Amino acid sequence: MRERAVRVIEECRNIATMSEEPGRIVRRFLTSPVQDVHVHLRSRMESLGMTTHVDAVGNLRGLWQPATGGEKRLLIGSHIDTVPDAGAFDGVLGVALALEWVQLARELAFPIAIEVIAFSEEEGVRFGVPFFGSRAVAGRFDPALLSLKDADGITLAAAIRNFGLDPAQIPAAAADHRAIGFIEIHIEQGPALEAEGLSVAAVTAIVGQTRLAVEFTGQANHAGTTPMRLRHDALASAAEWITSVEKLAQRTEGLVATVGKLNVMPNAGNVIPGSVELSLDVRHTEDRIRRASVEELLDAARASSDRRGVSVIWTTRMDEPAVPMDERLTAFLTDAMEAAQLPVKTMPSGAGHDAMVMAARMPTAMLFLRSPGGISHSPAETVRKEDVEAALHVSRRFLERLAAEVR
Amino acid sequence: MRERAVRVIEECRNIATMSEEPGRIVRRFLTSPVQDVHVHLRSRMESLGMTTHVDAVGNLRGLWQPATGGEKRLLIGSHIDTVPDAGAFDGVLGVALALEWVQLARELAFPIAIEVIAFSEEEGVRFGVPFFGSRAVAGRFDPALLSLKDADGITLAAAIRNFGLDPAQIPAAAADHRAIGFIEIHIEQGPALEAEGLSVAAVTAIVGQTRLAVEFTGQANHAGTTPMRLRHDALASAAEWITSVEKLAQRTEGLVATVGKLNVMPNAGNVIPGSVELSLDVRHTEDRIRRASVEELLDAARASSDRRGVSVIWTTRMDEPAVPMDERLTAFLTDAMEAAQLPVKTMPSGAGHDAMVMAARMPTAMLFLRSPGGISHSPAETVRKEDVEAALHVSRRFLERLAAEVR
Repeated sequence: MRERAVRVIEECRNIATMSEEPGRIVRRFLTSPVQDVHVHLRSRMESLGMTTHVDAVGNLRGLWQPATGGEKRLLIGSHIDTVPDAGAFDGVLGVALALEWVQLARELAFPIAIEVIAFSEEEGVRFGVPFFGSRAVAGRFDPALLSLKDADGITLAAAIRNFGLDPAQIPAAAADHRAIGFIEIHIEQGPALEAEGLSVAAVTAIVGQTRLAVEFTGQANHAGTTPMRLRHDALASAAEWITSVEKLAQRTEGLVATVGKLNVMPNAGNVIPGSVELSLDVRHTEDRIRRASVEELLDAARASSDRRGVSVIWTTRMDEPAVPMDERLTAFLTDAMEAAQLPVKTMPSGAGHDAMVMAARMPTAMLFLRSPGGISHSPAETVRKEDVEAALHVSRRFLERLAAEVR
Repeated sequence: MRERAVRVIEECRNIATMSEEPGRIVRRFLTSPVQDVHVHLRSRMESLGMTTHVDAVGNLRGLWQPATGGEKRLLIGSHIDTVPDAGAFDGVLGVALALEWVQLARELAFPIAIEVIAFSEEEGVRFGVPFFGSRAVAGRFDPALLSLKDADGITLAAAIRNFGLDPAQIPAAAADHRAIGFIEIHIEQGPALEAEGLSVAAVTAIVGQTRLAVEFTGQANHAGTTPMRLRHDALASAAEWITSVEKLAQRTEGLVATVGKLNVMPNAGNVIPGSVELSLDVRHTEDRIRRASVEELLDAARASSDRRGVSVIWTTRMDEPAVPMDERLTAFLTDAMEAAQLPVKTMPSGAGHDAMVMAARMPTAMLFLRSPGGISHSPAETVRKEDVEAALHVSRRFLERLAAEVR
């Protein structure tokens, strides 16, 4: 497995050279380097005996059929688009490993067909909306999306046509009744596995997420002439509240809550802040806990602003429920860890993935690999050879387990 | 005094029409409307029997001499430049009232000469540096200032020459040994007098001021995938600290402390803040208390950042000591309040004024008038007729008191 792990990492580094910009990894949806990736991956897939096609949303799909049977299909894959100035592993690692699954399936005489999908769009960079690839395969692509425009004013429909594809055929990209499940392997993009010294984890759920825009409005005033007791300081209100946000999240197991964006008006050193706009992002695997936490935080915002004669209003920008992974497939992953003599680790995913979209259509499971330094969406993003090796051991055990179920 | 108060307010409203922009009050240093103000005020001064000239920094100066004696001079005035979109009273009220002092002096056969000064520059709008007018009169005008450029690239020296003045003559603008003191009457520009229902106050001191630029540096990370215990959130550190700033100022009599400016990097809703730059402004009439407070706040900044594995650094941008007003002249003002049957009120000035600069040269005192709503630097800035009347009563009693001292 060591040599295969090396090959997987080399494959990711090789695909990283296919970029919109020399020296930086940028590969947005259906830009020219995507064509290069397709040509390269098609050739690798064909050498594995797979039949390939690009569906109408630009997903590259390769099908491996067992010698006999193969009416059922296991889907496996991840995305090949990137953020600007990306790392080499976010998404692509899951595609490179999917090809190793086909290799393993051949060796094991796996009784189920394997469809490898290199999703065309997950990051949402080019059109501001993510998951075009998995939406199409999950049969959840809303045709209204075709009117979206990129920064150059090109519509999504035109971008698809310019790539030689027909947007009218997107419904045909949906997986049918033959699909028995979807597996995605992805880097964690967080520091949890590294903090515990673990190589891999099975994902229990994609966390639910609330995003609020919050505005505190007080009264701008002269910082020198306004005594403390006569102030209505919007930033002081916001600051007390940000401290409450952090405290609640620290004492609530599994909750993350973040004020990532904050703008002060008028934002001058000698003026008491008149208003503050900020964002709140709250995530948890249990929707009940997430929603109760948001309520508690809104109470805290009211208290912190009331104390200062400041008003507070908020708008809900996102309220997405958690998406649990399939229990049976996830149990196969943890069984596979045990069989591979690895510590059994499960964890939620704090970020969205194609697996979240696919789970609406079919049983779905996800395997995370440790992200060294927790770093992602950065050229410094990397992956350890031993962790890829561990993922390959788990993959082999998973396929053996699934084969035993079917036979 | 009621009619005189009406006249003073009308004078301010009249001067407000002399503006760089129709419909808005904007009168920056040595711009064309300043010429209009000079013409108008010279005519008023001359009708009061005063001799007038414009000194080399653009201050309009009018001298009233008593019938006999008059070797000593009492200086009184304020500034006639404004911020953009200003109110009608900031500065100008003190000049309009100064003319009433001459009227009162005539009626009282006041034994000392009175020099009225309409300072040309206090706000620092045109060249980014304030107090040109009072610096020159206080003999503290640094010739290096002449190289400053305005937004159009015009140097201060050129601006002075363009106004028909000779910058080389600025040293001659300095007050000489005949000046026995300076009085400035100004709106409070804060809410304190209104909160106490008072018309006027004598200023005890211009507060000392520390300005710091503070930077908290943590680690930007994914808001979904980074557990609370593994975060280094620069904004959470800053927020806890801002709460400490407010608390310390609330429990320290006379202290004001403000975080007015705050910028978050990268300032995205789904990214834990990696760094936060903010301003701290601390003011107090006692330098010892101000400096000890700043030290305590820096300790709090270190504590709040240490707790989160965040670093904090700061730069001192300003450290100006408090400027006490002259005790004797200030006592004359409070005696005058008592004699005028007004509540005796003293308070610090949280903002800088020409009086602060003049105090370095001669005994200086300052009288504040209530600012309705605490509003200043705004078209909504106003002043109450009864407060101007109160100021005139205090003025009369002050002149009587001073005359009694001299005779």
